[in-house]
Amino acid sequence: MATEIKELTSKKENYAKWYNDLVIKAELAENSAVRGCMVIKPYGYSIWERIQRQLDDMFKATGHENAYFPLFIPKSFFSRESEHVEGFAKECAVVTHYRLKNDPSGKGVIVDPDAALEEELIVRPTSETIIWSTYKNWIQSYRDLPILCNQWANVVRWEMRTRLFLRTAEFLWQEGHTAHATREEAEEETLRMLDIYSDFAENYMALPVLKGVKTASERFAGAIDTYCIEALMQDGKALQAGTSHFLGQNFAKAFDVQFLNKEGKRDYVWATSWGVSTRLMGALIMAHSDDNGLVLPPNLAPYQVVIVPVYKNDEQLAQINAKLQPLIDELRASGIRVKYDNSQNKKPGWKFAEYELKGVPVRLTMGARDMENNTIEIARRDMLTKQTVDFDRVMTTVKTLLVDVQKNIFQKALDFRASQTFTIETYDEFKHKIEEGGFLLAHWDGTAETETLIKEETKATIRCIPFDGDKTSGRCMVTGKPSVGRVVFARSY
Amino acid sequence: MATEIKELTSKKENYAKWYNDLVIKAELAENSAVRGCMVIKPYGYSIWERIQRQLDDMFKATGHENAYFPLFIPKSFFSRESEHVEGFAKECAVVTHYRLKNDPSGKGVIVDPDAALEEELIVRPTSETIIWSTYKNWIQSYRDLPILCNQWANVVRWEMRTRLFLRTAEFLWQEGHTAHATREEAEEETLRMLDIYSDFAENYMALPVLKGVKTASERFAGAIDTYCIEALMQDGKALQAGTSHFLGQNFAKAFDVQFLNKEGKRDYVWATSWGVSTRLMGALIMAHSDDNGLVLPPNLAPYQVVIVPVYKNDEQLAQINAKLQPLIDELRASGIRVKYDNSQNKKPGWKFAEYELKGVPVRLTMGARDMENNTIEIARRDMLTKQTVDFDRVMTTVKTLLVDVQKNIFQKALDFRASQTFTIETYDEFKHKIEEGGFLLAHWDGTAETETLIKEETKATIRCIPFDGDKTSGRCMVTGKPSVGRVVFARSY
Repeated sequence: MATEIKELTSKKENYAKWYNDLVIKAELAENSAVRGCMVIKPYGYSIWERIQRQLDDMFKATGHENAYFPLFIPKSFFSRESEHVEGFAKECAVVTHYRLKNDPSGKGVIVDPDAALEEELIVRPTSETIIWSTYKNWIQSYRDLPILCNQWANVVRWEMRTRLFLRTAEFLWQEGHTAHATREEAEEETLRMLDIYSDFAENYMALPVLKGVKTASERFAGAIDTYCIEALMQDGKALQAGTSHFLGQNFAKAFDVQFLNKEGKRDYVWATSWGVSTRLMGALIMAHSDDNGLVLPPNLAPYQVVIVPVYKNDEQLAQINAKLQPLIDELRASGIRVKYDNSQNKKPGWKFAEYELKGVPVRLTMGARDMENNTIEIARRDMLTKQTVDFDRVMTTVKTLLVDVQKNIFQKALDFRASQTFTIETYDEFKHKIEEGGFLLAHWDGTAETETLIKEETKATIRCIPFDGDKTSGRCMVTGKPSVGRVVFARSY
Repeated sequence: MATEIKELTSKKENYAKWYNDLVIKAELAENSAVRGCMVIKPYGYSIWERIQRQLDDMFKATGHENAYFPLFIPKSFFSRESEHVEGFAKECAVVTHYRLKNDPSGKGVIVDPDAALEEELIVRPTSETIIWSTYKNWIQSYRDLPILCNQWANVVRWEMRTRLFLRTAEFLWQEGHTAHATREEAEEETLRMLDIYSDFAENYMALPVLKGVKTASERFAGAIDTYCIEALMQDGKALQAGTSHFLGQNFAKAFDVQFLNKEGKRDYVWATSWGVSTRLMGALIMAHSDDNGLVLPPNLAPYQVVIVPVYKNDEQLAQINAKLQPLIDELRASGIRVKYDNSQNKKPGWKFAEYELKGVPVRLTMGARDMENNTIEIARRDMLTKQTVDFDRVMTTVKTLLVDVQKNIFQKALDFRASQTFTIETYDEFKHKIEEGGFLLAHWDGTAETETLIKEETKATIRCIPFDGDKTSGRCMVTGKPSVGRVVFARSY
């Protein structure tokens, strides 16, 4: 009987190991036989499906449609946009042949040297190039604009050091690619999508995020401006949870995508792109979980409520089943995702630990005494607290609790971030403080040189120039040169 | 103004060109810059999304969960299962390098010869090997079984002659991979999924299918038995719309996946796999459409109803808008997918042609006279007929009509198939009849030799040994040897 309770390394002891243990033991994902590529297991994938579904609804509600573009990109496409090639064409999976043949030595198969491709194909690391080469045929006049496409897809970036969900060679994501007649409309779109990401992060993932713009050196390769949402993990490191890029006319120029505007003049099309990936799974795990396992926000939990019966014999179980069935039906009818685990080959203690590990927000337990007293025990995962309530009050209690848990998880993360956000005046203070993690708000002179120096000396990067930051001017903590406002520094994933 | 009405080549004139025209002009898909890879355009993708959602619901209702496995498969994995390698490892995309570098000559990028992979990676043509190498770690005892996983993914099979949706190098599909403790359970699962496919094909795609089992030479490479659903297209050619494979213990043996059974003995795990792909889009298009364009079954149409106002001036339009809004709300509230196209830059005639081309099942038209008479015009796409009904009856009429259209499209396809299904006694008759297309029911001696001969001489293959076929014994039409029942021959896609 698989009743061994899976213990995690504690966060305090070894945060990285705690994270990896949790991902494996909660059956979210695991490493595969292919270096850098993960297997997303059913429980992990069911969370990703909820993320997908919610984002997809939000994209569609703002007029976007899904489409699908090729996995492969001709090598030459990358050279069209000079910055893009530097950022993306280097560490990538290259398809050079299209056939294998039997090894003449009789052992297995070898690459057929006669089947070399004329031009090598790159497995997409991002799809701007193939999509803009396609848009060229879709756009003639302003009447063909805007194009508001999104794609759910797998992408590959060859990574040397990988970590489940956070950095993998292959990952799943969505990439929006929009085309517009004017600069203003494209800029609006870029910010609209950033708002959707931040709304999603805060209200579904219960993850407070800072919205802001990246510095030039942290920009997407080929973008005019990269906007981002930045979150703080429990170890004090930042995680970029989503980006939205204003691409200007760069890709339109690279792929010669022109249109006839309302004034009858030819102009290049304006572009945006924006994406979030399975990296969000890493953020979700790291932001809320504890030494007992995952803590999932109810809005994304595959099961919001798990019900465990505690019984001595089959007769008791039958009574509890009969008592609970109308409740289960009622919970489901009101849209609550419920799992009733009355499996007989696992003990209640094992089930309690397992559903704690898997982060189910609310657990109901019903035993013989509850049957006698017409009560039920309700436990909440975020606080690890329990209460016994009158059975007739369970529906309303559960409904209220799910809302409470969602709010509480967010508030906890918000309070944590507030406690880990520091206004820094001197570089000495900065160097000291950065060792403890957190967001450091400091003045910077706006140059790439200073940014690089700070990164080399402290491993901290500018996460963003925050929209809602302190805009009072000051002096760069390193060079003393003028600064127009504080930026957010952190070490990051 | 984009008011040019897009004419299709007629089916009769050139069926292949009609199909290609339709796919392009209805904006379902197009060829990309990458040979053999298609772009699925938003309208085409929205139909695929409906297919996905419905199948996914059916998979989940039968206990399946989604997961995700790597895009890449180490080359050596293919050699593990001897038949599988012959079937799949040959025509495939091979990743040999993981880096590009700047061309020393200064022009673009080249493959970095120092970044050759130790073992080449194959872009998955199907995932049995990578999945069974993973399952090995998931399965120790019968308590870990069954595993009921499905994956929605892209796969690549290098095809020399490609056709949009029907045969492309990259395509989208789902692949179910299940693991079981007993042969019986795996066989049951294989047939359960075949039933789901046939239920989906008939009740959602309105596509009548024959269920049956493939002959040995048409089996999936590595399967013990391949079951299939076969549909007949309007040109008399067959299309395999889905397959479900009983894999026996072949992959468990190839990847050494053993488990401790209830009796405490070690045994190899039993397997199934089953899949449908974007090929279904091709079947959907070819089964029902006509010279005016797509004919979509209401159950899969992105828009089930389109409403077009006909007006002379802004005042009239405003009146029509006001009159229609409550109807639109009511239709949507009752779950009907409605598009109201009151765009002013297209004429009604252009809109009628466009929505006919796009296969919208029901069109409502409201003009000045309808306003006066409190009526509305209702057109059905499948029959190309119109009626004027009292405005107060429009809700009930539309609801009834959507059910009728779904039924009628299926019945039409069923009648067509009946008219194109022939019982054949002699090989001479067969050779003559096969030129006209259709399903030919004939006796066959059960040997691969005869099957090959027939294929070489007539281009016809055995589509399946049908479950509901004529089981009376007879003599092979070619060799005169005994036959246990008729099999289904056809030329196919």
